[in-house]
Amino acid sequence: MSLDPKIAARLKRDADGLVAAIAQQYDTGEVLMLAWMNDEALHRTLTTGRATYWSRSRAELWVKGDTSGHVQHVKAVALDCDGDAVLLKVDQVDGACHTGDRTCFDADQLEIPLG
Amino acid sequence: MSLDPKIAARLKRDADGLVAAIAQQYDTGEVLMLAWMNDEALHRTLTTGRATYWSRSRAELWVKGDTSGHVQHVKAVALDCDGDAVLLKVDQVDGACHTGDRTCFDADQLEIPLG
Repeated sequence: MSLDPKIAARLKRDADGLVAAIAQQYDTGEVLMLAWMNDEALHRTLTTGRATYWSRSRAELWVKGDTSGHVQHVKAVALDCDGDAVLLKVDQVDGACHTGDRTCFDADQLEIPLG
Repeated sequence: MSLDPKIAARLKRDADGLVAAIAQQYDTGEVLMLAWMNDEALHRTLTTGRATYWSRSRAELWVKGDTSGHVQHVKAVALDCDGDAVLLKVDQVDGACHTGDRTCFDADQLEIPLG
């Protein structure tokens, strides 16, 4: 079993064979994290309903929450217009970030002088 | 004028010197698009309040909306926990997508057999 060829044909992978994956909490709209997927990670995400990524640092498939318990239950997946990014709408158990924060974007707000 | 060294030191750029940039509509929470920034694009985004990206296909800085009119007014910018992605909260004029859609994720919803 591998990724549906009709989906695979629409992906525009980077030099490492990856597309970017944005995880968003389905009901609140919080952007939780950005991670990466190869074809197998996307296939498993679509067929198991559990967000599964490719860890670039560990060079292995990573089922979100398998070690932390901070599972992402997938509600919807959309591919973007040029095929290099997917948007996952998920139900995040506890925090998405390895720091314990709810999202990976909680800790480091940049100042906008004209904002 | 270039990017604040304190911010530059926190970025984890890819082999092309880029970080991923997620644009989200600040009030509705819609994820609009994924694009890319080099240091100069982030600097201009923070200092002008207009979302500015690096176009990988055209290999040039791209002030969103300069040709289309579909400007993104930046409300907030956050860096993620490992420094390879930024989340922009913006006010998007009209549609974010070059196709005319509101977001780049509107057109291609993938089926989730177990969803």
